[in-house]
Formats: sequence, structure tokens, C-alpha cells
Amino acid sequence: MAKLLHHKLDPACRLIRLMLGEYGVDIELVEISPWRRDPDFLELNPAASLPVMLDSPFPPVIGILATIAHIESNFGPEGPVESLLPDNPSQRAETWRLVEWALIKLENEVTGYLLEEKLVKRDLRSGAPDPAVLRIAKANLNEHLAYFSWLLATRHWLAGDNMTLADFALAAHFSTLDYMGDIDWDKAGEAKDWYARIKSRPAFRTILTDRVVGMPATKTYADLDF
Amino acid sequence: MAKLLHHKLDPACRLIRLMLGEYGVDIELVEISPWRRDPDFLELNPAASLPVMLDSPFPPVIGILATIAHIESNFGPEGPVESLLPDNPSQRAETWRLVEWALIKLENEVTGYLLEEKLVKRDLRSGAPDPAVLRIAKANLNEHLAYFSWLLATRHWLAGDNMTLADFALAAHFSTLDYMGDIDWDKAGEAKDWYARIKSRPAFRTILTDRVVGMPATKTYADLDF
Repeated sequence: MAKLLHHKLDPACRLIRLMLGEYGVDIELVEISPWRRDPDFLELNPAASLPVMLDSPFPPVIGILATIAHIESNFGPEGPVESLLPDNPSQRAETWRLVEWALIKLENEVTGYLLEEKLVKRDLRSGAPDPAVLRIAKANLNEHLAYFSWLLATRHWLAGDNMTLADFALAAHFSTLDYMGDIDWDKAGEAKDWYARIKSRPAFRTILTDRVVGMPATKTYADLDF
Repeated sequence: MAKLLHHKLDPACRLIRLMLGEYGVDIELVEISPWRRDPDFLELNPAASLPVMLDSPFPPVIGILATIAHIESNFGPEGPVESLLPDNPSQRAETWRLVEWALIKLENEVTGYLLEEKLVKRDLRSGAPDPAVLRIAKANLNEHLAYFSWLLATRHWLAGDNMTLADFALAAHFSTLDYMGDIDWDKAGEAKDWYARIKSRPAFRTILTDRVVGMPATKTYADLDF
């Protein structure tokens, strides 16, 4: 069985777990805290980023873009399961646009800051979260929520009529933010209904059982009716 | 002819121009300064990011990941030209690992800061570059240069024996950094020889004629022997 080096709250790793879950692929999870800069991990991936997929006889597959491409090539959908990357060129472009939004824009403006302040600083005992950073990240998050609510007011799934990798990319971030209690669902509009729908998929189950020691999840984290 | 909404010094846009140049595809360039937040541009791309490719009858193709996928599907290599995304799974994973390094890690730790301080602040008249930020970005750049020099000491091209999208992704960043005079080539080791090789490719020609008004290029920017 292939192994995924991951951290429970890393959104890119959650995206890969959701993708594999949807495709019905089992994977062994190995937990890594990349900010601790373990020499063995740095030798494997000098960028110190996650995910890393170990899938012998292939060499290690490093980073979110390589892992998405590896899974699409080697564990792609079979039988009745649809690919999460649509064949239709317009839908495919829309899917990548929104995957990029989650992986880069939401990560850089919101999730990256909150994980650094709440998780990494705690783990490294390098001080309390900076209230000014938390405030900016939460203000940014509200802008993102407003955009996705607007988008989802006219679409069943994020990139259109069908569920795609974009849904899982955004849901991975939402699930991490929700774990930390950073999403005010009363203000999330259509994005809340969408998240409730995707959260109830079988692929989401193991994500909802994740717990980080010393950092409890918000009360409704695992509730399908939140 | 398709149009590319771009900024001359945006590394992601340069990557697309290099990719299209290598594939022998002509494109009309339309200059955008996304930080000015022009309402028409924001309506097209609420993320305010570049590149955006307009290729009728397709809807607008937005963002670097969607544009790479669109080009591979619609303007892929013909005849003797090799794809910049190798078919071999190991080489493909290595290519994506290093594309991601340039697009995300180098962008977030180096190029993004330097463009913000030197280009965006100047254009918005929002103050002088912050010396502390410049210092950190340059220190980070030296770490990146050391890594790539180490990698290129045992490889002809970045991801292995063949030139790939990874080479153009990194060369796009190097070219922007070099325009601004931020690379100390005497300390760049093997990365200098590699950049000299890729800089002399025909696809690079238009990049080397780019000039931003009021922000001259470093003296050796366009020299193939620098």
C-alpha cells in the first residue's frame, strides 16, 4: 500500500486524502510536522513541504501538484466514479482556477497564517498567537467566504454542475479552518450548505475523526448538522 | 490569435510566454497591472491574479495552473518538439515538484516580496522599498540559489536529462530577479551556467526585450554572455 506523509491539519494533505477517498484508494498515513525540520524529511524534500507520497516502485512524489498528477495517472477513477478533473476544457479550466484559489490565495491570505499562529507556534513553543495576524487573517477569510457564497448561489458545485477537485481543495481548507473554530457559519451563506453537502460524503469520514493532541476541535467539527 | 493578459515582470506570465514560445505558438500580449484593481479586470478574475488567457471560443482561462493545462491540451507540442511535461512518471513528478518550488516557494519567499517592494510600491506611489524586507528576500534568494546550484551540479536540466516546464518556471523567476539586479551571478555557481543555456533559447528573445518604464533593467539583463 502507498504511504502519504502528511499532517492532520495541512489542507494540501487533506485534499489528497479526500481525492484518494473519493477514488476508493486506501493509503497508509504517516504523520510529519515539517516545521520541526527533521533531517531525514529534509533530505527527502528540501522544500520541507507536504504532501509527499511514497508509492514504490516510483520515486517519492513530492508536493501537491506532483501528487495530484500521480494520482490522476495511476489511481484514476474506475467504473462509475467520475474523474475529479473534468475532460470538458471549460470545466477543466474552471476547476484549476478554483484549485489554485484554494491552494495559493486562500492558503497565503488565511489558512497559512492561522496554522502558523495557532498550530506551529504552539508546537515549537515559540510564543502566543499574534492577535494582529489573527485579525487580518479572519478579515481576509470573510472576503473569501463572501466570494464563495456568491459563486455557490448559482452553482450546485464549485466549478459547475459536477463535483470536482476544486470542491475538495476548498473543503480541505474549510475543514482545517473549521477545526480551529475560525469559520462563523452564521455568516457563511450558501457556502455553509455546500460544505454540509460535501462534508457528508464518505471520503470525508476519516478527516472528521482527526484530532491534534492539546488542540481540541471546535464542538461541531464532526457534526454533519452544524 | 489568442491573447495573454500579463505583466512584463510577472514570473507566472513569463513562464507561459516561454512555454508558448517553445511550442511555436504566437500570442497577442495585453499588459495589466493587477494591483491597480481595475474593475473590468476584477470582474474577469476576482482573484486579481495573472496570467489570464483569452482564447475564443473557450471561456477565459484564469490562473497559471489552468493556463498550463489549457496549453498542454490545445497547443501541445507537434512534430519534433517534445512536451515540456514528460510522459515518464518519475520525470513528470520531478517536473511538477520543481514547477511548484518556483511558483509557490520561490514566489512566496523571494520574488513576490521584491516585486511588491520595487515595482508595485513605485507604481502605486505608496512609499519607498522597505530595506528590511529587501534584506530578508535577498537572504532567502541565496538559499534558493545554493539549492539549485547543488541540484544542477549533477543534472544537465533542472528535472533531469531533458528540458521541462520546471526549467522555464525557474528561468522565468530568475529573469525577473535578474531584471531588477537581485542575482549576484558570481555566487550563483552551476545555476549561472544553466541560466546562460536557457537564456539563449529562441523562446527567451521577447522576454529579454521587455522594459518597464521608469524601472531600467540591470546592464547585463539581455546579454547572453553575462
